[in-house]
Amino acid sequence: MVDFFGQDVLSTKSLSKSEIEKVMITAEGFLPYANKEKTTEILKGKLMASLFYEPSTRTKLSFESAMQRLGGRVVSVVGIESSSLAKGETLSDTAKVVETYADVIAVRHSQPGAPREMADAVDIPVLNAGDGAGEHPTQALLDLFTIQNERGKIDGLTIVLVGDLKYGRTVHSLAYLLAHYDVNLILVSPDQLKMPAEVTNDLAEKGVVFSETEDFEESLKQADVCYMTRIQKERFADPAEYDRFKDVYILTKELVEQSNPEMTIMHPLPRVGEISLNVDELPGAAYFRQMRNGVAVRMALLSLVLGASL
Amino acid sequence: MVDFFGQDVLSTKSLSKSEIEKVMITAEGFLPYANKEKTTEILKGKLMASLFYEPSTRTKLSFESAMQRLGGRVVSVVGIESSSLAKGETLSDTAKVVETYADVIAVRHSQPGAPREMADAVDIPVLNAGDGAGEHPTQALLDLFTIQNERGKIDGLTIVLVGDLKYGRTVHSLAYLLAHYDVNLILVSPDQLKMPAEVTNDLAEKGVVFSETEDFEESLKQADVCYMTRIQKERFADPAEYDRFKDVYILTKELVEQSNPEMTIMHPLPRVGEISLNVDELPGAAYFRQMRNGVAVRMALLSLVLGASL
Amino acid sequence: MVDFFGQDVLSTKSLSKSEIEKVMITAEGFLPYANKEKTTEILKGKLMASLFYEPSTRTKLSFESAMQRLGGRVVSVVGIESSSLAKGETLSDTAKVVETYADVIAVRHSQPGAPREMADAVDIPVLNAGDGAGEHPTQALLDLFTIQNERGKIDGLTIVLVGDLKYGRTVHSLAYLLAHYDVNLILVSPDQLKMPAEVTNDLAEKGVVFSETEDFEESLKQADVCYMTRIQKERFADPAEYDRFKDVYILTKELVEQSNPEMTIMHPLPRVGEISLNVDELPGAAYFRQMRNGVAVRMALLSLVLGASL
Repeated sequence: MVDFFGQDVLSTKSLSKSEIEKVMITAEGFLPYANKEKTTEILKGKLMASLFYEPSTRTKLSFESAMQRLGGRVVSVVGIESSSLAKGETLSDTAKVVETYADVIAVRHSQPGAPREMADAVDIPVLNAGDGAGEHPTQALLDLFTIQNERGKIDGLTIVLVGDLKYGRTVHSLAYLLAHYDVNLILVSPDQLKMPAEVTNDLAEKGVVFSETEDFEESLKQADVCYMTRIQKERFADPAEYDRFKDVYILTKELVEQSNPEMTIMHPLPRVGEISLNVDELPGAAYFRQMRNGVAVRMALLSLVLGASL
Repeated sequence: MVDFFGQDVLSTKSLSKSEIEKVMITAEGFLPYANKEKTTEILKGKLMASLFYEPSTRTKLSFESAMQRLGGRVVSVVGIESSSLAKGETLSDTAKVVETYADVIAVRHSQPGAPREMADAVDIPVLNAGDGAGEHPTQALLDLFTIQNERGKIDGLTIVLVGDLKYGRTVHSLAYLLAHYDVNLILVSPDQLKMPAEVTNDLAEKGVVFSETEDFEESLKQADVCYMTRIQKERFADPAEYDRFKDVYILTKELVEQSNPEMTIMHPLPRVGEISLNVDELPGAAYFRQMRNGVAVRMALLSLVLGASL
Repeated sequence: MVDFFGQDVLSTKSLSKSEIEKVMITAEGFLPYANKEKTTEILKGKLMASLFYEPSTRTKLSFESAMQRLGGRVVSVVGIESSSLAKGETLSDTAKVVETYADVIAVRHSQPGAPREMADAVDIPVLNAGDGAGEHPTQALLDLFTIQNERGKIDGLTIVLVGDLKYGRTVHSLAYLLAHYDVNLILVSPDQLKMPAEVTNDLAEKGVVFSETEDFEESLKQADVCYMTRIQKERFADPAEYDRFKDVYILTKELVEQSNPEMTIMHPLPRVGEISLNVDELPGAAYFRQMRNGVAVRMALLSLVLGASL
């Protein structure tokens, strides 16, 4: 039996399929609450510490909204880098101190492994809200949940991941989740920003069907789901290279309509041009629903690790 | 019938008299709650996003107190300029993301029109908490409420607005509200800081009785209400000009007593010398009650746009 | 009869023994709530303003957790130095404004006396959360509570205070509390960082038994309680002097075991090397329990000044 009570959520790699499904089913139940159709107080009396060592307004607000929509409370540290919590103290000591206040910790840190270091020091659950080039498990879970929710299934889908697949921890964490399913992955990126061999080797080992290409338009024709990410200029040594790709990987309404008008379009946001504004009008434009699903998934995780249920 | 449910509050210009009165009457009902004599939870389960793109501790605390005194919750972004919410993303996208978390948005922005841009993108109500040189409708409404509350009426009053009438968005927003009433406005300012022609033309068109003068003491003799504002040195090209006016527009206890000891004295705060400390002893010194009224008025607006009532 | 209702908590100097005991007994009752074994809502409908004019994440989180674990709400100002609350406005005006929002104020300020200045301006209770070189009464009360809780008593104990006794306001505030009890104080510090004559004179006057020494190891042999503090390099003109002392005042597991294995070990945290990590394994290592006690003591103070009880 899957039991999240008291557990940390640090990585998607370590999640079993039954754990993943447990999160999906639980999140489904929280959707009416994330959608503001119902209210609940199942986490009344519980306190979440929101520790963001690097800025991430979006994820921070999502976690804090989820906790509060469950009737819980939040203590939050802003600009933690310049505060006494950070100065000279070990992460382990910080975690032990925060444990004296809070029932659960959500932590974002630039250093991979930092959430695990904190988790190892305390008995309360620690949720990894992104650790540098490491993982971002709650984002990957909400991405998976969105695919399930938009398409009604995951098995059998062709999912195109587009953009910066090298540095994007979100697509790495998502790939590990998708490896539990029978999907066809198409990885679209410039050669410089290909999915790391470490990840593709793992995918191959698990028998995942995937292909790598630079051809965006051709890939789109097969897409049930197109997951866009931002390509950052600073990743390229040669600006001319950047200019070549930023023009190619822009999803327009026309491109969707001439490829597969029914495709589901996702993006972790913020977008800065990779998806044209008129794509918003398409029924498959799921990126804002994806944000809302984030609240449901984080509600699910918070309630599971704190042992509360609807 | 006036119905604020689901509506934005972006400007005082667009408010009808019956809408204004609706806010006044509703705020009156919330006074015992703002005064800490009663508690309520009519907004239990509701979440306000507090987005302050420029610092405004006073207004931010007032909104957040109002929401919480109604049993609601707050997610708040501090130092939003440096956060991912601001970087590269359109205001419209930011608003759509925040809509997935929150039931209502309170936004302060340096750019006039920014709250409207956000409001146009979402279905949840947006409250303008000040948009640069634009408007500050909640401040103007609390100012009007304070006049009503201190004097028992608005019609028939002589109201003296003093100081920087050119750049002070608060006095502009207030003037538009007062235009619905039968008041006598005296606008006291240095010539360089006169009320903009755009505003005075509008006042004239609406048949408001007003006069413009530099003579502070003479104006005070007729004042039922004296609304002081701060004159900022940086508005003057010639420092000598500034020195002349900062000395003239200081309200002292003596000045009040020799003009009209019963007058109501208001100020949006913070004051930095425009009102002498010993004025605080006068029964008409209303500026701290004005702050408290701000909580009542924001309670009224939040409950109205969210469709809750006592 | 001791009655804290509506009172400020600004200093430990001014507390009577019966007031101190009242806080201890009340905090004892709140321990199951600070320990997350029970929940309560005795401060439902109450709002605390958390005003931190200088960063202090630890104390801020402790206060905000305490308030929320009592069912109360918090409005919090971060980076207050750069905000309008601070600019040009007197502390007295700021306090009067905040009084219109909140039921109680917790204030940290770099300027000694600032909390008293605010307290003098308002009717709601003000809690001093540390005022520069002044006092830190809530920290001292939680320290005393920890001694009582760890040892079952205070009278008859030998308490060794170690490190920077000159600039550490915490040890000053604690010394004034301990002066009400029959304790033996051993003050261990480099000559440059001795307890100020002002404090030791007061202790002498009150008949407190104390001695001053630089000999750390010898002192430890007599210790029932060892209260470590951090020695900061910047306090020494001569770096060689610093190097001499930072090596001497490190508490190791071996040192505890060869002196008095039963001793209680305390530290206001964060530690940066004064206490070796393996000391954590000892049953007397009380510094993390001390933090948790901080929540109980602040719960006690908040409930007492707001007139609520379990």
